[in-house]
Amino acid sequence: MAHINLPEGVPGIRSLAMFRPDTGKHLYDLVSVLLRDHSPLSPAERELIASHVSARNDCMFCMSSHAAAARELYGDQHEVVDCVIHNQDTPLLSEKMKALLNIAGKVQINGKKVAPEDIQRARDHGAGDRDIHDTVLIAATFSMFNRYVDGLATLTPTDPEEYEAMGKRLATVGYQTPAGSRQRQ
Amino acid sequence: MAHINLPEGVPGIRSLAMFRPDTGKHLYDLVSVLLRDHSPLSPAERELIASHVSARNDCMFCMSSHAAAARELYGDQHEVVDCVIHNQDTPLLSEKMKALLNIAGKVQINGKKVAPEDIQRARDHGAGDRDIHDTVLIAATFSMFNRYVDGLATLTPTDPEEYEAMGKRLATVGYQTPAGSRQRQ
Repeated sequence: MAHINLPEGVPGIRSLAMFRPDTGKHLYDLVSVLLRDHSPLSPAERELIASHVSARNDCMFCMSSHAAAARELYGDQHEVVDCVIHNQDTPLLSEKMKALLNIAGKVQINGKKVAPEDIQRARDHGAGDRDIHDTVLIAATFSMFNRYVDGLATLTPTDPEEYEAMGKRLATVGYQTPAGSRQRQ
Repeated sequence: MAHINLPEGVPGIRSLAMFRPDTGKHLYDLVSVLLRDHSPLSPAERELIASHVSARNDCMFCMSSHAAAARELYGDQHEVVDCVIHNQDTPLLSEKMKALLNIAGKVQINGKKVAPEDIQRARDHGAGDRDIHDTVLIAATFSMFNRYVDGLATLTPTDPEEYEAMGKRLATVGYQTPAGSRQRQ
């Protein structure tokens, strides 16, 4: 049961955006720009970073939903997602993405953990300022969503099919403020 | 030196909002609503929660700037801010705020650390759903800002007078997207 009175049957972040629509709107706008608008990183790569950080924070809802979105977006290379979540090496991952996931993993612990050598390794494999910036902001943003969703003990579905449906929606429709939140505004 | 090429001489989050204005806008909008718009918690109390989390994440820029804002807003009770940052007990802190800071401290570690007993303690001292929600979201949001600012090694002023000026501005003007970021959009 959630720690506060949230709309019944609505999982994770959606229930929180319905509880407080004025903050929910900005959270959805942020994640939509960050994971879908222009970036040198593909939407699949950005969903992978989000899944990696959420797995490290043990946030089942965010990890499962963004991993499902990443699997959809990676298509026939979808195995890469489970390899990253389970810390298994895979030839499907470029050296550049390995270096960026390393940075994201450090941000997940504490921003100060990112060392100049971590940045240099990413640059050596072709990462520019925007790759590095977007990686750090995605890792920081999911450090927020993970804490928000779990800190209020929101509903976390356990049926993999529910996440598969969420993944398809996130991969095709993207991030839209839940309809109910607009009615309550 | 910052890990990426940021506007020179601009500290912390402002330099990042100027580097990527489209995400910066939503981050400023979020923090403005969260720390200044309607809440059962006063702006002073909300800045105190932000300072507490930033101190625990050892983020000098966020801690110093939001502590300065909290001191301004607390006026003649400004001592409470340094007591909280340095984990000293003080009669200036209500039992309700102590319980909410306890929740914020748990969110800073991981959302799952918040136990039903922590929530009950806050409710026993008068906290309602919105107090609890806003506390968790502020703690989660600063877990993001702290990582974003430190993960890219942004400029962190060391002169206390600079933070005092920031605190006065945040207490009176509030949160506005840096002007430079609009020009670059």
